[in-house]
Amino acid sequence: MLKPHIISVVGKSNSGKTTLIEKLIKEIKKRGYKIGIIKHSLHGFDMDKSGKDSFKHAAAGADTVMAASSSRIGIVKRVTSDNPDELKKYFQDVDIVVTEGYKKAGKPKIEIFRQEIHKEPLCIKDDTLFAFITDSDIKLNVPKFKTSEIEKLTDLIEERFLK
Amino acid sequence: MLKPHIISVVGKSNSGKTTLIEKLIKEIKKRGYKIGIIKHSLHGFDMDKSGKDSFKHAAAGADTVMAASSSRIGIVKRVTSDNPDELKKYFQDVDIVVTEGYKKAGKPKIEIFRQEIHKEPLCIKDDTLFAFITDSDIKLNVPKFKTSEIEKLTDLIEERFLK
Repeated sequence: MLKPHIISVVGKSNSGKTTLIEKLIKEIKKRGYKIGIIKHSLHGFDMDKSGKDSFKHAAAGADTVMAASSSRIGIVKRVTSDNPDELKKYFQDVDIVVTEGYKKAGKPKIEIFRQEIHKEPLCIKDDTLFAFITDSDIKLNVPKFKTSEIEKLTDLIEERFLK
Repeated sequence: MLKPHIISVVGKSNSGKTTLIEKLIKEIKKRGYKIGIIKHSLHGFDMDKSGKDSFKHAAAGADTVMAASSSRIGIVKRVTSDNPDELKKYFQDVDIVVTEGYKKAGKPKIEIFRQEIHKEPLCIKDDTLFAFITDSDIKLNVPKFKTSEIEKLTDLIEERFLK
């Protein structure tokens, strides 16, 4: 398989996916790797705002619109697929890609679960699950970490996907 | 030179660059070409907003952050250069790239000029200028078009950069 590896952070709504990914980014960066993120937006997204020039140009029919400064670029592009493997070409310069969502894409998965708000985990019978993040007593048949155990989770990610 | 060609729309502030590019996009698309836009943002840009998840992930140190839907992707990426030739790799699937700004990048230029608000054009002595857009009587040593003559301007662009 072509590098970089793609892994997915999944969980029911409000389970803390964005915050977990934020912590993972910091820990993975601390270890010297480059990281890419794909946030799956089933219902579109509002990265560009009505009235902004980039929106006007996308609305006028431009296939790719980029805003470029010397340190950062922003791109809005028409695509025909949101399959993470198809999107891999935009991540050739990172060491690992973490997706938020994409629970049906078949990538190795980390589930984050909060028993306070959800009855049961999403991935009870999902053999692509490789880590389960929860502060509850529930166990699944994979390594389990507390939401505070980011270093241990990153050790596992590093061992499996970055070496 | 590798395709696609890059051309620049330049002009002093409020001369109408964004609107001209909007019209060009529509006319170029009507003729069946794919078009990419680069908007030069010398002072950075605010494509992602504080509080949005994509911003959190970029702020946490992610090198590339993408929001993906099945029809459109948005990407924010750290880069080390805003040189349009360096950014060409993101436009391999379009037929032409039009930049807004980049008057120092040395690409073939279209200047748009409004005499009501500016005393003189930007590109009086610029041998990369290939078209001058103005509703005034001022002439430069290149083909001149009124702001309404988008089809004629596109004919010139098509002849020089798309054939």
